[in-house]
This record gives sequence, C-alpha cells and structure tokens, in this order.
Amino acid sequence: MAKKSKGNKKADKAIGKLKKKLKKLRRKLALAVTPPPAAPQVSPLAPKGGFPVLPVIAGVEFAAAEAGVKYQGRLDVMLARIAPGSAIAGVFTRSSTRSAPVLDCQDKLAKLAAEGAGDRGFAILVNSGNSNAFTGAVGVEAVQTICKAAAKVLKLPESHVFTASTGVIGVPLPAERITAVLDQMKAELSDMAGDRAARAIMTTDTFAKGAVAEVKIDGKTIRIAGFAKGSGMIAPDMATMLVYIFTDAAISQPDLQKCVSSLNRTTFNAITVDSDTSTSDSLMIAATGKSGVQIGGAGSASGKAFAEALGGVMQDLAHQVVKDGEGATKFVEVAVTGATTQAAAHKVAMAIANSPLVKTAIAGEDPNWGRIVMAVGKSGARADRDKLTIRFGEVLVAKNGWVSPDYREEDGAAHMQQQDLKIAVDMGLGSGQATVWTCDLTKRYIEINADYRS
Amino acid sequence: MAKKSKGNKKADKAIGKLKKKLKKLRRKLALAVTPPPAAPQVSPLAPKGGFPVLPVIAGVEFAAAEAGVKYQGRLDVMLARIAPGSAIAGVFTRSSTRSAPVLDCQDKLAKLAAEGAGDRGFAILVNSGNSNAFTGAVGVEAVQTICKAAAKVLKLPESHVFTASTGVIGVPLPAERITAVLDQMKAELSDMAGDRAARAIMTTDTFAKGAVAEVKIDGKTIRIAGFAKGSGMIAPDMATMLVYIFTDAAISQPDLQKCVSSLNRTTFNAITVDSDTSTSDSLMIAATGKSGVQIGGAGSASGKAFAEALGGVMQDLAHQVVKDGEGATKFVEVAVTGATTQAAAHKVAMAIANSPLVKTAIAGEDPNWGRIVMAVGKSGARADRDKLTIRFGEVLVAKNGWVSPDYREEDGAAHMQQQDLKIAVDMGLGSGQATVWTCDLTKRYIEINADYRS
Repeated sequence: MAKKSKGNKKADKAIGKLKKKLKKLRRKLALAVTPPPAAPQVSPLAPKGGFPVLPVIAGVEFAAAEAGVKYQGRLDVMLARIAPGSAIAGVFTRSSTRSAPVLDCQDKLAKLAAEGAGDRGFAILVNSGNSNAFTGAVGVEAVQTICKAAAKVLKLPESHVFTASTGVIGVPLPAERITAVLDQMKAELSDMAGDRAARAIMTTDTFAKGAVAEVKIDGKTIRIAGFAKGSGMIAPDMATMLVYIFTDAAISQPDLQKCVSSLNRTTFNAITVDSDTSTSDSLMIAATGKSGVQIGGAGSASGKAFAEALGGVMQDLAHQVVKDGEGATKFVEVAVTGATTQAAAHKVAMAIANSPLVKTAIAGEDPNWGRIVMAVGKSGARADRDKLTIRFGEVLVAKNGWVSPDYREEDGAAHMQQQDLKIAVDMGLGSGQATVWTCDLTKRYIEINADYRS
Repeated sequence: MAKKSKGNKKADKAIGKLKKKLKKLRRKLALAVTPPPAAPQVSPLAPKGGFPVLPVIAGVEFAAAEAGVKYQGRLDVMLARIAPGSAIAGVFTRSSTRSAPVLDCQDKLAKLAAEGAGDRGFAILVNSGNSNAFTGAVGVEAVQTICKAAAKVLKLPESHVFTASTGVIGVPLPAERITAVLDQMKAELSDMAGDRAARAIMTTDTFAKGAVAEVKIDGKTIRIAGFAKGSGMIAPDMATMLVYIFTDAAISQPDLQKCVSSLNRTTFNAITVDSDTSTSDSLMIAATGKSGVQIGGAGSASGKAFAEALGGVMQDLAHQVVKDGEGATKFVEVAVTGATTQAAAHKVAMAIANSPLVKTAIAGEDPNWGRIVMAVGKSGARADRDKLTIRFGEVLVAKNGWVSPDYREEDGAAHMQQQDLKIAVDMGLGSGQATVWTCDLTKRYIEINADYRS
C-alpha cells in the first residue's frame, strides 16, 4: 500500500474530525427534535381488560350505523329494540336547560308510569355528534320526526320510542340522516351487537364503557348488562353521560324506577370530572322479564339481590366515566365521614372533588393537604377546624386541626404517586358520610376543551 | 502556487461537503433547541400604568422589611401604623376553616365595635410566605406573640394590633422572624412607603395592586388609597386576598363597617378566579379623620359620595386581582339580568364564571355559547330555556331558546379575540341582576398549581 503524502494525512485527519463532529451533532439533533410523547389515545386509567363481552339479554336487540350526523366514517347512531312485556325506567339531568330529547323521554316515562306500558315493547334510538340541545322549536320537531319514523319502521307506538342525542349544543339536528338508516338498522338488529351500540354513542370518550352482572335468585340466573358514554361535563345530577342498562329480570315499572333512582344517588350522582352538568344526561334501564325471575319490591330478598347487582353495574360504569375524564391521569376516591348529616358529607366531598386547587395538586402528585382544609372550609357544610382528620390512603396526615406529629411528607408523597388515590376526611361531628369519585385536572383537560367545540 | 494532487482535491471536496453538512445541522439544532417562549412574569392583563402613586393619607405610615419568613431576599412583612382617633373596620373569609389571624382580627373588631376604640391608634402587621392557617394551638400562639411584641414596640394595646398572614397552609409560622424586624420597621415608618407595603404582601402575584380616589365633600377633598394581593384561590366570600384601604375621612366605626360590608358584595364577593376560597381572606379599612371631613350615614349626601369613591377603589382592586388570576389571559365580565331575584342572578353569573368548560372555551377564544346555556342550566336558579338571551359584547348570539337568526359565528369569534370580554345573559323572567368578573382557565393555571405548594 502506498505511503500517504503529508497533505493527504492532514486532510484525512480533518475529515475524521469533521465526521466525529457531524456524528455528535446528529445525536444532539435527534435528541432535540424527538417529539414529546403523544397524548394517549386511550386514558391511562382505562380498565385493563377493555370492553367486557356483553352477554345476550333475552328480549333486547341492538344495531348501529354510520349516519354521518357529524362524524364521518364511524358508527354514530344506535338502536335498541326491547321486546313486548318489558318494563322501562330512567333518570335524567336536572339542568333547567334540558335538551329536547330529554324532555321528550321524561314526558313519555311519566305517561307510561301513569297509564301502564301495555304490551308493545320499546325502542331506544341514540345519536352522537349533535346533542339537539338549545335548538328551539326545530329541536322538538327533530325528536318528533325521528320518533315517528322509528315507530313506523319498528311497528311501535310513537310514545314507546325514546331518543337521546349527545354532542355539540345549539346546532339543528339533521334528523333525516338518522331516519335514513332506520331500515338498514332494523334489518341488522341482533342480540349480540351491544358492543357496536356502545361505540356508536361515544363522543370524546377514549374507550367504550361496559359492565355486566349475573345474580342467582330463587335458583335461576338473571343477567344485567349496561354501557355508557361520557368523559367531560361530568358532575352531580348526572353529566354528559348516556347510560343504557338491560336485564332479563321481571320487575314492575314502579319498582324498577324506584330501584334505579335510589342507586343513582350513590353512583352516577356521586361522580364529578369538572363540576359541569350536561343538558342531555340520560340513564335508561329496560327489564325484559325473559329470565322468568320475578323481582319484588325494595324490601324483598329478590329486590335486595337485584339492587345489589344493578348497583354494582352502575358503580362500575360510573367509575369508568371518571377514569375517562378528559385529561385524567388519576382516579380519586373522596370519602367523608363524621359529618353532621349525609347531605353535609356529600357537600364536603364534592367541594374537595371539584376544587381546581385540589385537582391540580393531585395532577402534580403533591400531598397538599392544606388545599383539602381549604375545600372543607369553603363547602358551606358545618365544620370544626380543630376536629378534622385527614388521611391519604392509610397515611394519617392531619388531626385535631393540625398536621399529625407522625406524618412524614414522603409517606404522603408516596401515596400521591399511585394511580388510584383515596382522600379520607373525618369531620369529627356526627355520623353523616358520603363517598364520591373524581379525577385530577391536567393541562390535557385544557387542551381538549379550549379546542373542541362540544 | 503548486498544483494540488488528485488526492488532495478529493479530500478538499470531502471536507467542503462535510463542512456544509455541519453548518446545516448546526442551524437545525439551533432551531430545535430554541426554548419555548418563557411564561410571562407579569400578567398580560396588568394595568398599563402599573402601580399608581399612592397619595399620602394623613395619619397612616408604612414600613416593610425582609424578614425571611419563607422567601429570601425580598420584602415579606409590612407594617401600617394608624394614628389615634381613627376608625377601623373589616370583612373576612366565611370559610369554616379560617386561619388563626383571621379569627383574632374578627374577635378584636367585635370587641372594638362593642366597647368603642378609645383614642390610641392601631397597627396592621402582615406577612407573606406562610398563612398560619391550620396550625392548631401553635398558630394561635404565633399570633399572640406577634401582637404582643408589636404592641410593646409601638406602645399600643395588644387589642389594637391586627395581623394577617398569606402563603403556605399548615406550616408553623416562625413568629420570631417577624418580631425580629419590628424595631427596624418602626424606625423606618413613613407616610410615603405604601408601595413597599403593597409589594411585601405579594405571593404568586405578578404585579402589585393599588388604587386611589379623591372626592370633594363640602368643598374639602378626602383621599382614599388601597392596595391588595391575591391571584389564585379567588372566589365569592372573599379569596386568598388581602386588601388594605386607608382614608383621611372622618367616619364612625359603625358607619365605616356598614359601608365596607355593603360594597364588598358587589366588588370582592363578585369576583372569582377558580371558585376556591381561602382560609385567610381579609379586607381592613382605616379612616383617620385627618382631612377634617365628617362623613354621615349611608343615607346622607356625604355618605353617598364617600361610598361611591370607596366603591370605585374596591372595584378597581377587585378587578386587578382577577386580572392577575393565575394563568389568566382574558378579563371577563359576566352580567346577568332578568332573573327572578338578585340572588338568582348572582347564582347564574357565578355558575358561568366558575364553569371550567366556559373558562377553557374563553382561553381558546371559542364563542361557545352552548356552554353558557349549560352553565345557566346547572346553576340551580330558575331558568326558562326558551326565554334566554345571550350576548357576547354587543353581539346578539341567542334568543328565545335558540341561536339568533342574525348571529354570525365570525362576529362572536371577533369578540372572543379581545382581551376584555363581556358575556351578557338575560333570563327573561324578572328584574334580578348581578355582575361578576372572572378570567379564563389556561394551561398556565395548571402549571402554577401543580407545582407550587401554596
């Protein structure tokens, strides 16, 4: 091999140096331009198992379609057909600016309760993308158009067709896009299509929410299956939330209504994402009776067993809604005990769960118990500062109006790093207690809601 | 010049190429690592003129010191000495977990009101960095220690020394750091040091807040000067807010208390940043009488003129507190008219002003009037959806339960791009009205509160 000239050697050295520099710079650049981790498509709090396999509920069939109400290329209308002989009940938002479909459902349920359902069956028709709320007279007309068309296709009285709409407020609902897919949906009705129905009603949800229960009564099994949507505008008195639950139990309409209204207080009315309450919240439950198992009143053994199973399904769905809270990274249980009354306990729990300063501290994993004291103080419920006890999980943080002598900041901090948190406050005054569930308040919540016209 | 060898030429070319590549990479890297624009140190909504020149109020002197309570290298304690013959009054947080200094001030004012002030003068001593809230018995002791020491240094009865503390909750207040600077502050007392006092009480404030008024009564001029701190945890019933106002008017203690309590309803209790209420909020006002102008009761001409001037100062300070709301980029007036009662109007206005979904829409400059409808609906006040009228500034957005036929989205959007916004809602039901002020909810609010232990 020829010996290299002096000039060549120098040049090689320079090239070597430059190449090294280039390599270094390339590495730096790679690090610098690596995009920040993308916002998760699915909430980190989504149930690990995903959407459950919904069991067939005898007497209930589902269909879903892409009607293009607002979204394109995804399911946005769902139909549930409920067999003759079923009972149906519901609870709805207490907003004084309720949407047209909510008012229509409430009217029809009130009439059914007064007159009896007859033996014709029911239909529930729900669209996402447009809430048909604050749409004046045209909103009412849209509901009538849809109910009329569905009644005709399904051979039901109009008064037996219930609708719900979720999505943007104040934009006329294009009813004709929904009526256009009715024939197709009727043809596709199947008792196995509950998961498609659950997906069709999603808006900003990052995962579909479902829950199931089976319970043995008198040696026979009854089934309950439900699904829900909702992830923002979640507060007491229901939320931007639609919930549909089906069971093959046989239960009278009044008993079904009483049972679901009672359970609603400690489940869907005990969750809050952002303290905002939707104009469209609806929960409906239909009981087909096809299991042949008759459920008695609230005091009976069968009534208790049914309520326990239904309560489990409702709480599961309610927790899933909070876990899909917009931008949520933490699931928080707030348990208040020792308040003067149950209502006072609920007030304190909600003041904590809705406090932006508490929720941002949780987002920052800061065991900032001073903000808990602040929230108790502003709740309006009777409180004695010097009788308060505060716990983060099992960690005793404060008692007798001051930080506990045994409290170590690192213990509080360790609890805050969990994904599932518990804040327990004992008021030291009486026996009133209440538990509510919420999530943290993150920058992602702002991003979602400063951009999305919902 | 010697002709270059073939090898040299090749090497030169390679070096040239590499150098070009290096240059390109360096440019890319410079762009990539340019840090995002820093968060503004001063709120974009800060008054353009900055802190006003506070006029001398005869009979009031100020001092400020660096006591190192928590912050290092900045003023954190302020002292105001008020001449004998003055009247003093105050309003405080309604939190049921009020701090020790708040309870002490309320006790002392109640006694003064019952027994008369005598003719000894007063002192107000305020620290930032530690709120002495939820600190149990040691918190009470700290207040006593400070009042005792200040009373000795200033030759006042202990019952004439008022304190306030703002900052972190639940940490014992190092009273000795405050008492250590009392002699120095006494020596430095000056009727020109109001601006230093205003700076000493700041916590997360990005600018010092001051307001002044002069009013002619019976041909003579009286002066009012006040300053305030506060930028988070701001909600009705006062906030993390300290306000001190001084006037040379002569007015009886009961008249002064009545006047400030009444004005408080439409000023400091009509602002909200985040709906959270502090355990430490205090407003105190001292009237020295040194102008020689006697102010009569609320019905008298002088009483009305005084209230108008004081109301102006209080509203100005209240607006500055909102404009310094943590992360605020918009100042928003929410005016509700046509409600069944004034209380109902206030409820609706606060529901709008505190709604996270309304506040994030404002941050995103989205004229999302659907969220206004939602907030009206959840307020709990009587509402008829189909009688609602909504305006953004002068733009008629919705009436009769639906979007106005003349409304154009670009008009609403243009209003939302302003820095000062107005949301007007007419309920169409009665003559109750209320106006409140708030700011938007931004990512910066989350940043501040997920990190800062306050």
